Amino acid sequence: MASQTPENDRRARGEAALTEIAGGAGRNVIDSLRDIAPELADWILDFSYGDVFSRPGLDYCTRELATVAALTAMGNAQPQLKVHIGGALNVGCEPAAIIDVILQMAVYAGFPSALNGVAAAREVFDDRGIDPRVAGKG
Amino acid sequence: MASQTPENDRRARGEAALTEIAGGAGRNVIDSLRDIAPELADWILDFSYGDVFSRPGLDYCTRELATVAALTAMGNAQPQLKVHIGGALNVGCEPAAIIDVILQMAVYAGFPSALNGVAAAREVFDDRGIDPRVAGKG
Amino acid sequence: MASQTPENDRRARGEAALTEIAGGAGRNVIDSLRDIAPELADWILDFSYGDVFSRPGLDYCTRELATVAALTAMGNAQPQLKVHIGGALNVGCEPAAIIDVILQMAVYAGFPSALNGVAAAREVFDDRGIDPRVAGKG
Amino acid sequence: MASQTPENDRRARGEAALTEIAGGAGRNVIDSLRDIAPELADWILDFSYGDVFSRPGLDYCTRELATVAALTAMGNAQPQLKVHIGGALNVGCEPAAIIDVILQMAVYAGFPSALNGVAAAREVFDDRGIDPRVAGKG
Amino acid sequence: MASQTPENDRRARGEAALTEIAGGAGRNVIDSLRDIAPELADWILDFSYGDVFSRPGLDYCTRELATVAALTAMGNAQPQLKVHIGGALNVGCEPAAIIDVILQMAVYAGFPSALNGVAAAREVFDDRGIDPRVAGKG
Amino acid sequence: MASQTPENDRRARGEAALTEIAGGAGRNVIDSLRDIAPELADWILDFSYGDVFSRPGLDYCTRELATVAALTAMGNAQPQLKVHIGGALNVGCEPAAIIDVILQMAVYAGFPSALNGVAAAREVFDDRGIDPRVAGKG
Repeated sequence: MASQTPENDRRARGEAALTEIAGGAGRNVIDSLRDIAPELADWILDFSYGDVFSRPGLDYCTRELATVAALTAMGNAQPQLKVHIGGALNVGCEPAAIIDVILQMAVYAGFPSALNGVAAAREVFDDRGIDPRVAGKG
Repeated sequence: MASQTPENDRRARGEAALTEIAGGAGRNVIDSLRDIAPELADWILDFSYGDVFSRPGLDYCTRELATVAALTAMGNAQPQLKVHIGGALNVGCEPAAIIDVILQMAVYAGFPSALNGVAAAREVFDDRGIDPRVAGKG
Repeated sequence: MASQTPENDRRARGEAALTEIAGGAGRNVIDSLRDIAPELADWILDFSYGDVFSRPGLDYCTRELATVAALTAMGNAQPQLKVHIGGALNVGCEPAAIIDVILQMAVYAGFPSALNGVAAAREVFDDRGIDPRVAGKG
Repeated sequence: MASQTPENDRRARGEAALTEIAGGAGRNVIDSLRDIAPELADWILDFSYGDVFSRPGLDYCTRELATVAALTAMGNAQPQLKVHIGGALNVGCEPAAIIDVILQMAVYAGFPSALNGVAAAREVFDDRGIDPRVAGKG
Repeated sequence: MASQTPENDRRARGEAALTEIAGGAGRNVIDSLRDIAPELADWILDFSYGDVFSRPGLDYCTRELATVAALTAMGNAQPQLKVHIGGALNVGCEPAAIIDVILQMAVYAGFPSALNGVAAAREVFDDRGIDPRVAGKG
Repeated sequence: MASQTPENDRRARGEAALTEIAGGAGRNVIDSLRDIAPELADWILDFSYGDVFSRPGLDYCTRELATVAALTAMGNAQPQLKVHIGGALNVGCEPAAIIDVILQMAVYAGFPSALNGVAAAREVFDDRGIDPRVAGKG
């Protein structure tokens, strides 16, 4: 049970998961909060990554694709969408799978959401030198 | 290319995908539209299932988990969320994986979204005689 | 200019517009607020109907179709969507035009929004004895 | 710092805050999760109430009014809105202050949000025998 | 029925509708997808424009005003809102009618939505040399 | 009752409230609307500030914190969120209280909303020379 987990284990698990999933982009988010909202940084490490993402039931790629789906559908969190498109690549998702999930959101949240999701993916792919044609098989 | 696909292939692919994924619940949605909005029924079959879900890049379970993630996060489409929780079960997702994706939405869309997603899952699990403790490992 | 309009003109304009557009359903909303939130009732009459809907630039049917579009897309205001589907009928919009606008939202807000919009339309059409096949040309 | 807080302190703080704020309605939510999603129950106690609501910077009434504002504006979490309207009453907010915050959302999220928020407040007030005219000063 | 429509008719209808409604801005969106998400480009042409917008029930100006209403209300698709404000002008809507629909969204989705919609309209009007005072009759 | 309030009183009340709450940023919004949408400027003064914000039930700081909560949670109105973070400071809210309300939205609308709210607060604090460490007590 979570209530029996020593707090420092949550932090260690969270740090490890953040590093593996969000890498430098995640670290930058955490560091940027240290002056103005240090508790938010703690919660991201301990709760989001230490408690939620570290649950064993789902592999990281499926978790990141679910996050990309949700953020694409909500359409109001473009910086976080880019972090998690990068996170999906970090944990081994195929670029084409990321695009597939984004396109699927056209059905559930409308074409503008999918278009803005594809624009986010293009930026992340460009930064990493990923050929967009590989992703889209175009 | 989609533009070279004969229309009746889209319909056949869509009918097959709808049956496999959404089963009777999906069929009921389609049938209920035949009097008032038959074009919407056509589009669901031909576009949503025939074009989008039938793309080969992702397995159906990953697609359904992405849909469950998005609908849980949006929080304004409870009937469709239940259809796709059922769809996830139909295509072989583990009940615990569905719960895991819903819980993850607490991080991205807030606890009310996750709570209402869990309530939807409970209803679907109850209808199918799935023990909720298996899902939640509680 | 609004700032030169006597307040009682706003109320008279709003009452007239509410009666023409929302009819009995609108009157019920206003009356239901009189104990718990009388200012909200005033604002709906004076601002929403007296200031906004009474502007001469658009005919009432176009205004109601725009409202039906927005509420279908937002997906979180089903009671108000039904009032304005009824309002669209009250001001002379064709049932088929209402369905057309709702279906178009599949493109901009996703299929769940359109499906829940059609369900709302069916309820309103049923209450008024409108044959759903006329609306959908099915 | 949160990272130095023993886990059992979080649970004790969370239990105390949940009891004071959400009372029986909150306890029911927690209990209802114990079979299907026990971790979500833990997170609500430890994170939402133990970490966030227990921060000393804001009094509980201001926190609950902020939550009522957000849930009214989002419009997709009616069960949780009712819990927190009750929570606002539990921590000593005036009924009229709750209505005031809900009405203010007409400006930021539109009249449908405010109308559905008032409907939620009426249900909670009715359950507690609060005269709606006191709230609305009508 | 859609299922009997040859696929190349959908494409031809969609290309014609896209050109008439969205003009160069729409063409740019399509072209920008050809490397990374060519299927999304196909779907926009074949489904959004070929199936939905080409339905005979509503004139293009009413359709574009409904889209402007929805995107203003949703508030999370500013690039697409600008394309469709331009589209409304392309199909003959009066600038003042576009502003009227955007202002009406203050009632249904709140003043921030209306303010950001007006900002989008100003940009599009500026690009086309439309005097903003004509639109607002100020 | 609002219906007995002379219109020029609404304007005077609204001008006074706008000046006290939103200051120069609010004035800029009003002025920017005078050519393209003068009625929207009137409505903001007369309705939003003259009718709603001027109601006596809540102090301005609580009203502004409720607005910051709602706009952070909605996540689709960043310019208005910054105006109201500034407004909260103008009416005497502590910087730390503003951050507290934003962080609380992580629970109700997810971490991306809270992160983007903190980013907005940092911009406003920077413009005013407020040390972010004071706000976050870091």
